[in-house]
Amino acid sequence: MTDARTLPDPLAAEKVSQSLALLRASRHDAWLMFTQELSQGGDPNYPFWMGERDLGLGLLLLTRTGERIALVGQLDAALPASTGVWDTIVHRGQASLAELLRAQLARLQPASIALNYSTTNAMADGLTYGKFLWLQRALAGTPWAERLACGEELAGRLRAAKTPAEISLIRAALAGTYEILALLQAWLRPGRTGREVHRFILDETARRGWQPSWTPDHCPVVTIGPVAAMGHTPPGAEQLLPGQVMQLDYGVRREGYCADIQRMWYCPQPGEAAAPAEVQRLFAAIQAGIRAAARELRPGVPTWRPAPAALKVLVDAGYPEPVYGVGHQLGRATHDGGAGLIRRLEPGQQELTIEAGSVYTVEGLETLVPGRGWVSQEEDVLVTPDGPELLSNPQSEIWLVEG
Amino acid sequence: MTDARTLPDPLAAEKVSQSLALLRASRHDAWLMFTQELSQGGDPNYPFWMGERDLGLGLLLLTRTGERIALVGQLDAALPASTGVWDTIVHRGQASLAELLRAQLARLQPASIALNYSTTNAMADGLTYGKFLWLQRALAGTPWAERLACGEELAGRLRAAKTPAEISLIRAALAGTYEILALLQAWLRPGRTGREVHRFILDETARRGWQPSWTPDHCPVVTIGPVAAMGHTPPGAEQLLPGQVMQLDYGVRREGYCADIQRMWYCPQPGEAAAPAEVQRLFAAIQAGIRAAARELRPGVPTWRPAPAALKVLVDAGYPEPVYGVGHQLGRATHDGGAGLIRRLEPGQQELTIEAGSVYTVEGLETLVPGRGWVSQEEDVLVTPDGPELLSNPQSEIWLVEG
Repeated sequence: MTDARTLPDPLAAEKVSQSLALLRASRHDAWLMFTQELSQGGDPNYPFWMGERDLGLGLLLLTRTGERIALVGQLDAALPASTGVWDTIVHRGQASLAELLRAQLARLQPASIALNYSTTNAMADGLTYGKFLWLQRALAGTPWAERLACGEELAGRLRAAKTPAEISLIRAALAGTYEILALLQAWLRPGRTGREVHRFILDETARRGWQPSWTPDHCPVVTIGPVAAMGHTPPGAEQLLPGQVMQLDYGVRREGYCADIQRMWYCPQPGEAAAPAEVQRLFAAIQAGIRAAARELRPGVPTWRPAPAALKVLVDAGYPEPVYGVGHQLGRATHDGGAGLIRRLEPGQQELTIEAGSVYTVEGLETLVPGRGWVSQEEDVLVTPDGPELLSNPQSEIWLVEG
Repeated sequence: MTDARTLPDPLAAEKVSQSLALLRASRHDAWLMFTQELSQGGDPNYPFWMGERDLGLGLLLLTRTGERIALVGQLDAALPASTGVWDTIVHRGQASLAELLRAQLARLQPASIALNYSTTNAMADGLTYGKFLWLQRALAGTPWAERLACGEELAGRLRAAKTPAEISLIRAALAGTYEILALLQAWLRPGRTGREVHRFILDETARRGWQPSWTPDHCPVVTIGPVAAMGHTPPGAEQLLPGQVMQLDYGVRREGYCADIQRMWYCPQPGEAAAPAEVQRLFAAIQAGIRAAARELRPGVPTWRPAPAALKVLVDAGYPEPVYGVGHQLGRATHDGGAGLIRRLEPGQQELTIEAGSVYTVEGLETLVPGRGWVSQEEDVLVTPDGPELLSNPQSEIWLVEG
């Protein structure tokens, strides 16, 4: 969270304004979220409303009429004020939090109060079961207990549709990622192990006050040579040997926002000036597959449509069909939303569509070249109203590891 | 999370062993937790079982008979294996997560399945409402749906009772805190502002790859001179002027564990070689109050007992009665548990007791010296079976700001 001290409050202002617009367009009259201490779990959507600020137990309430109400502990009253976003800040004196909430609801008379829970989208599922029970007890005997409603579509859209400030932060995370990869390129030599590459990247990331986009045990994922499988694995002791490829899955988290890309290296054998034709042909097919999937990233397109477009390119080029989906949303979280780029719609599964403002990874198509290793790629793409816009700079050729 | 790459797996091993012992001593036969991506909220107790490892949707199951079962996505199977803790790792192939869970429960036949939820202890309240609904649906029509039970006492005790490795990590966080304070002492001059002090501390913390113990917007809290009130406030533009005191509330988080102490400085006026007598007398009374409260930190003592002991010292010395409680548990979170050192037991409130292995802050007693500023202190104390053991080094005299 080190960088968060520079998190601009304009970001919280943007996301609260967006929340109010979503609320006005919904069937709900109010949207309720608990305050929390960020470092220890809780609702992943809380920072959208309060920035990265730990608060003790309290409640945040947005209303269809535009009110922004924070009910907080006495010691915490300065914190919502410091955002510039919350215009009504009530701190508990003699009244309990439950009493303050009932008083606000009695004044506002909401017919439906949205809560952040979801059985399908983990990033819209922030309310704990204990706090749900607390709300039911706090509102027992009032009309409001029956008016608590599932607000997953609000939380899901708030996460999915990035504001301009959020897109700038993802671009900054990508710029940081490239900075680390340039250092890696200068340092990389034949014989380096997966553990050495992993450690080098984490050290350089930490030196700049940044974090890896996911937990450092397996960020970056470093896949060297023809190992059994690619996946979410900690680094191993395999050395990068001449004739082998190295695949890296990595991103920098900066000021709370993530990048996530995959890149490839080849360690030449004596006399080689480039990766062998069999590796280059696969690399080109994977890049064509990613472009085919990315072209489908337009508002309103079902989330099951991009994957088959990508897989078809690989299969048509004579490669076995890759087994995983081809991407996920990206933002404050590396896996940022409930609308991943699935391979097919399963029977009974709800169809989701791609929304404008979303950022997606388009990735994978991982394929093994026997004796060489695994090849895959990953790019980050913004969905604009007019279609896809690449945020990352695609790798134009496989990078060589100089001896 | 930068330091977490060095998080020792022996820590996860210790905490899972402790979890199994707690489970055997409880009325439950199994204890269930979802896997999660750590950076985006979720159950604050998940790292005790898996270290700092992001996983996609999956389930972790401990049993009274000592089984350690992880049901995870295919891409994630290497991650529970990398802990050395989980002895049965099942990854989803054709079977869904719900099917895998039902199969395990049919084999285990548990009469009671503990879940992490609580209406009173936020740190034992990790299960989301959406995931609770998911479990109910996954188990609908089976006997197990009726056997889901509140496991707050398990999660609460797992957090409260620190293992030896956890106590070592809190000591390391304190050592890091002292390192930063020594740098601050060398840099501090009359005229520095609260914002400058705050920025200096955050920069030095980040330079070492550490984090502040709570969010950087108000960690450290820097209170300079006779401002209106102390509290959880971001830093301001007030300068430290001769004749004034500065109070700091701060701690380093290192490898996932926190320190939390308060310390005092005085900025001398020309000719002064120490803080004025009125400030020193209050400082001594606050230290005596903290010692009085700390003496009460013994296993089995109710959590409302230490505060009055401390407050009495202040009132007997002629000061107004401070208004807040005098401490909280400390560990992975700065406010680590549901058993804070409250001033009194409210009617209807459940009595909690202090447990062996807990680490508590003893703190506050904040009192204003007119014209000078606020004075307070905070120490970190381990509750051993024999009584309190100070983990922090109490400040013996108010530090001077040299011109």
